[in-house]
Amino acid sequence: MPRISESTVRRLSHYYRALVEVEAKGTDVISSQRLAEREGTTPAQVRKDLSHFGSFGRRGLGYDVAHLRREIRAILGLDRRWRVVVVGAGNIGSALLAYRGFAAQGFEVVAVFDNDPRRIGEAVGGLQVRDVAELGAAGASDSFDIGVIAAPHHAAQAVADLLVSAGVSAILNFAPRKLIVPARVALRNVDLTMAFENLSFALTPTRGQRRRRAQD
Amino acid sequence: MPRISESTVRRLSHYYRALVEVEAKGTDVISSQRLAEREGTTPAQVRKDLSHFGSFGRRGLGYDVAHLRREIRAILGLDRRWRVVVVGAGNIGSALLAYRGFAAQGFEVVAVFDNDPRRIGEAVGGLQVRDVAELGAAGASDSFDIGVIAAPHHAAQAVADLLVSAGVSAILNFAPRKLIVPARVALRNVDLTMAFENLSFALTPTRGQRRRRAQD
Repeated sequence: MPRISESTVRRLSHYYRALVEVEAKGTDVISSQRLAEREGTTPAQVRKDLSHFGSFGRRGLGYDVAHLRREIRAILGLDRRWRVVVVGAGNIGSALLAYRGFAAQGFEVVAVFDNDPRRIGEAVGGLQVRDVAELGAAGASDSFDIGVIAAPHHAAQAVADLLVSAGVSAILNFAPRKLIVPARVALRNVDLTMAFENLSFALTPTRGQRRRRAQD
Repeated sequence: MPRISESTVRRLSHYYRALVEVEAKGTDVISSQRLAEREGTTPAQVRKDLSHFGSFGRRGLGYDVAHLRREIRAILGLDRRWRVVVVGAGNIGSALLAYRGFAAQGFEVVAVFDNDPRRIGEAVGGLQVRDVAELGAAGASDSFDIGVIAAPHHAAQAVADLLVSAGVSAILNFAPRKLIVPARVALRNVDLTMAFENLSFALTPTRGQRRRRAQD
């Protein structure tokens, strides 16, 4: 099977949510045309995305909503539970722990670690914050799947190294810093600071534009 | 000036943070080679990214750290304050309001709205939650720059429409839904659910792989 691009996976997530919605409304069958319209893409793109994984629709009949929803659920790995460990019990970590939506989708936070003595031992989102020094040992017994880095950026690489040695297969990094992990570990970054900076860049006229406006 | 890609802006953000760090350590001059190494890119890429905005370094001498830091700060629009309005005072909204780092970078949350009567009037992060029905009118007097959508996905498009009519020039959307906004409004999406789904996809063996493994 060819490598599936991140954008294909992103669209699969969108299709999945669209199917959950239309299924809840009692719709049994959906065309690639309608699925495409909902997601702002083309029917050809929908068919191409799905063709990577098998043959789901019948020409002229469309897709069976419940079947396709289950198939995409399995493709995305949402039909099982993932054990998530969060490192950093600050704002981002606490927000993740408070968000019940992830557990409903199979992402269950089973442990949270911090290095701040004032936080260690506290209860956050129903879990007791543990000392990050114990993370490696905990990984051996708890078998974490996904590690979330919600630590300050200067600590992020050290936390990533700890998570790798604790045996995680995937890391979600919230720290605004590029991390290096072994190729066998999947890494995704969610950089809120960068998202804001991207917007402020979009809002900022360039010097060329300012000059042109000044000359008007 | 040609259109600057999102990935260029992302790298500028990285360079900016790297420059802040090396400046704090007392370094006066940095080569494109060292800047590239820190960010996992090439010196040619660094020079190309910066060349969009002017001429900053001198061949063989490298970049003046303080000067380049100030220039990138201005390019990214971080030398001014942006007035941010948050819609949705749930987990994500509260986490943003609690996070002081954004204010330090010029992103100041000046108002927060919700449609839940139990939340309206409550104090969150030093602000009183206001009724979302008042958002349009508030926009006329408060002149918001950036709107943050931290509402549930079924409400996201309606909130986006409200923010546009309240006069924002940019929207940061945390809801897992594709939004339609006028071309003059910059839109960026931060989809945490999708980030998790992308990781679970990466962790999930495809049917082909499972079959091959089963045959081994």
